[in-house]
Formats: sequence, structure tokens, C-alpha cells
Amino acid sequence: MSAINSDIFQHHMSENVCFGCGMHNSEGLQIKSRWEGELSVCDWVPLEKYHGWSNLLNGGIMATLIDCHSMCTAMADACKREGRPLDSFPEYRYATGTLNIKYLKPTSTLHPIRLEAKVVEAKGRKTRLTCDLISQNEITATAEVFAILVFDESKKEPQNPFKN
Amino acid sequence: MSAINSDIFQHHMSENVCFGCGMHNSEGLQIKSRWEGELSVCDWVPLEKYHGWSNLLNGGIMATLIDCHSMCTAMADACKREGRPLDSFPEYRYATGTLNIKYLKPTSTLHPIRLEAKVVEAKGRKTRLTCDLISQNEITATAEVFAILVFDESKKEPQNPFKN
Repeated sequence: MSAINSDIFQHHMSENVCFGCGMHNSEGLQIKSRWEGELSVCDWVPLEKYHGWSNLLNGGIMATLIDCHSMCTAMADACKREGRPLDSFPEYRYATGTLNIKYLKPTSTLHPIRLEAKVVEAKGRKTRLTCDLISQNEITATAEVFAILVFDESKKEPQNPFKN
Repeated sequence: MSAINSDIFQHHMSENVCFGCGMHNSEGLQIKSRWEGELSVCDWVPLEKYHGWSNLLNGGIMATLIDCHSMCTAMADACKREGRPLDSFPEYRYATGTLNIKYLKPTSTLHPIRLEAKVVEAKGRKTRLTCDLISQNEITATAEVFAILVFDESKKEPQNPFKN
């Protein structure tokens, strides 16, 4: 685990073992998301093993980056709307309801990736976001994502992630 | 690389280094797809590192499985429509145009996964498919996928994967 930076959403997600966004998964992508104004951004450097074609990023790994960055953004947005810091009680976690991705151009593995997500609507347990994946200053994939609140530390009962 | 089985689509994709479906990526998911009647199926056993929560599969890895199985199915379907075996000339490769996934239930990492894909329509360079991800006899995610023919061994000119 890297040094704690209070701006990074994932540094406030305790015991997160997720392949995409878990700081506690040494074999995962370990994305790091933060606010940049109204946008939530993530900079990530591809590893060769995640290619789809030689020097081009695999579409599923792109989906993983978009998915995890969007879920973490939904969590951070919920805290922001409640006017409280990321490390305050209760901890929230979101899971993906729907992931719709359009692939626009090939994405190089030789250059860093940037993700930019924006919350479009947050209503009840659902958050709708858009997320662009950017490589060399071009949007190479764009997505609409629905996130669902599936864990609320303040609730005793376990919640069904897929019931509204 | 495992022993050649002529039924497996990926065994006929030369030099495929893809993280999801490449037989030539020792660090990848190495999915293996085959026909079962009109359905294209893939059985895959999750590794713990690909979890999203403890014992539950990461949504992005599910997207990777769906994406790669669908692209390989589009390729195999094109050969089938042309009435020729997978190892015949010309070799085709597809890339993802659109990937729309609905996550319906949590997916265990403790049980094998099955993917079932079906070609809905094939027209020009585009193939539309549906793909279900099944765990413990339940569909836990369902997807609609558009595949685009991006490599045709019989064409000399490189093709732009994202132009129609």
C-alpha cells in the first residue's frame, strides 16, 4: 500500500481487495481517483500484460478501469453531497448496476491513461455517471454507468445490491 | 499454451497476446470458447486475485470475459457463415464497438463461470451478439455487444477498426 494521501478516494476504502481499485490487492490495477473540481479523475499507467493487441490496451481492462473509477466516484460523491470527508462515518460502497461503453479509437499501452468521470444524477441508492477514457489527449472510450449503493456502514442489515 | 484442440476458437488465433483471450499471454485469463449447437460457450474458473469483494468476482473481469468471448464468437461465426473451418484463410479478427452489460446478481469466485453467447445479427463488418454470464446455474450478468471486423488477412490495407 502506498503512502496515505487524503485526496485519494481509495485510501479511504478500508479492506478493499478489489482487482480494479483495491489498495489491498497487490496483483490488481490499484487505480487512484481524486476530485479535480467537479470532475473525478484517475491517472493510470498501463502494463504490457494488459494488452489486447500488441501495444493496444485490452477492452476489458478499459472496462475495469471505467467501472472501478465510477464506483469510487459514486462513493466520494455521496460523501460530498452529505458535506462530510471521505474518512467519516458511515462508510459507503457502490456496485455496478449497468455499464455501457462505446469504444471510439484504439488505446495505446505505451502512454498513460486518464479517466474523467462526472456524476449526472444521484437519487436514492442509484448514481448515474458518465466516464471518458483518455489517451494522448483523445477520448478513446466513453461510458454511461449506473452505480448502486450496496453497503452502508450505518445499516445493520446486509443489503441486496441488486434490489431497488 | 495448452494442447491444440481444434474445437477451441482461440487455438486458431495466431499470435494472440490478448489479456482476455490470448493463448500467448501467460498472465492473461486465457478463455477458451467453442460451439455448443447455436450457442458459443466458455467455461472458466476464477482466480482469487480477480475478486471485487471477498469471494465475489470483479465486474471489470466479468466485462473482460464477456467482451473477449463475444469477439472470438463473432470471428468463429464469420467462418461458419462462410462455410469454412476456423484454421482456413483468411484469418479474421474483431474488436469491440459497444459493450452494454447489466449486472443482475453477485458472482462467486468459488465456482466455475459459464459464458453463453449468441449471434443476433451479422451485417457487413458488424456483428451483434448477446452474452450471458452464468454462475451456479443463474445468469448473474447479461450483455449486448457489437463486434466490428478489424482485421481481414485477405486485405492488404490496414483497416480502421472504428470506421464503418
